[in-house]
Amino acid sequence: MTGHVLLADWGTTSRRAWLLDESGRIAAIFEDQRGMAAVEPGGWEAAFGELKRNLGGTEPRLSLLAGMVGANRGWREAPYVPCPAGLGELAAGLCWVEPRSIAIVPGLSQAGGAPADVMRGEETQVLGAIAACLAPADCVACHPGTHTKWVAVRGGRVTEFRTVMTGELFALLKGRSILAEHLGDVVAAGADFDAGLDRGLDGCELTADLFRVRSDALLGTGSIGNGAAYVSGLLIGADLRAGLALSEGREVHVIGRSDLASLYAAALERSGREVRRIDGGEAVVAGLKQLAELVE
Amino acid sequence: MTGHVLLADWGTTSRRAWLLDESGRIAAIFEDQRGMAAVEPGGWEAAFGELKRNLGGTEPRLSLLAGMVGANRGWREAPYVPCPAGLGELAAGLCWVEPRSIAIVPGLSQAGGAPADVMRGEETQVLGAIAACLAPADCVACHPGTHTKWVAVRGGRVTEFRTVMTGELFALLKGRSILAEHLGDVVAAGADFDAGLDRGLDGCELTADLFRVRSDALLGTGSIGNGAAYVSGLLIGADLRAGLALSEGREVHVIGRSDLASLYAAALERSGREVRRIDGGEAVVAGLKQLAELVE
Repeated sequence: MTGHVLLADWGTTSRRAWLLDESGRIAAIFEDQRGMAAVEPGGWEAAFGELKRNLGGTEPRLSLLAGMVGANRGWREAPYVPCPAGLGELAAGLCWVEPRSIAIVPGLSQAGGAPADVMRGEETQVLGAIAACLAPADCVACHPGTHTKWVAVRGGRVTEFRTVMTGELFALLKGRSILAEHLGDVVAAGADFDAGLDRGLDGCELTADLFRVRSDALLGTGSIGNGAAYVSGLLIGADLRAGLALSEGREVHVIGRSDLASLYAAALERSGREVRRIDGGEAVVAGLKQLAELVE
Repeated sequence: MTGHVLLADWGTTSRRAWLLDESGRIAAIFEDQRGMAAVEPGGWEAAFGELKRNLGGTEPRLSLLAGMVGANRGWREAPYVPCPAGLGELAAGLCWVEPRSIAIVPGLSQAGGAPADVMRGEETQVLGAIAACLAPADCVACHPGTHTKWVAVRGGRVTEFRTVMTGELFALLKGRSILAEHLGDVVAAGADFDAGLDRGLDGCELTADLFRVRSDALLGTGSIGNGAAYVSGLLIGADLRAGLALSEGREVHVIGRSDLASLYAAALERSGREVRRIDGGEAVVAGLKQLAELVE
């Protein structure tokens, strides 16, 4: 098939897109903050047109979009594909906005025996990482963020996953709670982060341990220097505890290059795991390219 | 000594005051929402004057005020008294705003070996409950709220306590989180509350289990009918887990008559504890009366 292909990871707060030329090489990359939250209802077609113009104006023969663009508040709701699922199931479940030309990648759901859970976008990154040989077909991946996703893959299919509200809870505590005044510092690895992390990994009572930040400050005991680092460690420790239950002592693939991903990598190493870092952009492009091949 | 005595429990969001006549009987009770948060800096004297007027205008010979009125943002900062401490230590630590006439009850602090923690107001209720024979001198009390307090008492002195941010976290999740749209129902005891409670008591990963409310709703599995009840159960379960570590299998005295206190009582009974309910007003009056006797 000739013509360009547009691939996009269109999330809640940002979007990133790649234009591939006829030989499959990246001809243009564009990224901005026009995520789902910044697109008004009915404004998706225009937002997509703007995206194409920002990539140089070439009309792609095929566009594949992953992420919250397929949510109920997105462009078109792409029904979740149930686990276990690999790229084959995702390709079969594509939601076509324009026949044979624009499709949204479905998210994954987990129900039945396992606790109910959902994701949109991370599945394409994790399965793309495997397609690009950045991770083996049997692996556990961690995608840190507002809602951290832990994903277990067997034979190239997602078998189980778990969402942890770590980033959102940290933001609520920092912005709106009685702890806010103690959480002003930049989170950094170090003794306070490790102290929180060890408590979290140990299965502490999170809602009780959080208040220590305030008590310590009021009493001036000085045992917590950087409250934000301690609280981040506490939440990430609890997050690892939830996620590592999927991983059976193996290495963990951390997707993302943010400071947050670095903290997770440090935390995983402290907990005795081996860590492999994966670039999220590289992974999602690989996943979407593979899906493009599967539908052509 | 002759003259009236004014007793008050002056918290963050509300205040409650009692005027005792010369024979120690309650002559007037007043309650409103003018807690610490509603008193501007420099406005405490006027707020206290208003309180006296609302109790009938009698000028008391002695006024004893417990609670956040003694915090750093209160009328006068009353330094914390370290644990272990009973009513004798509280009396010795009173912070006199006017010599021999107006005093603020200090809060308690815990430091050294035990995790740093602080409280203001609950100590007077718990020790007052013992003074009024509503609880034995060796007991564990639970004071549910924005910041739940668990208090262990031995020989009439608070030996250990723990703060859990249950109410505040619930409010943040209900008001500001991605779960908000699923938490609109009134929290009530029942199957959803129990399901969350059992998970919380079991030491689940709270930040992961919370997200299930959203996944369940998105997938329409119907396994959680009342999301607010489930989340409340989850948080109260985690709260009990933290607090019951102080209690060694004995009965628990739940202070307060609110719907929240009823949920805690139900939760404690489900966890196999015996529960005694204590009226917070009765307890704080008893504690403050005892302090008045100790300083006269």
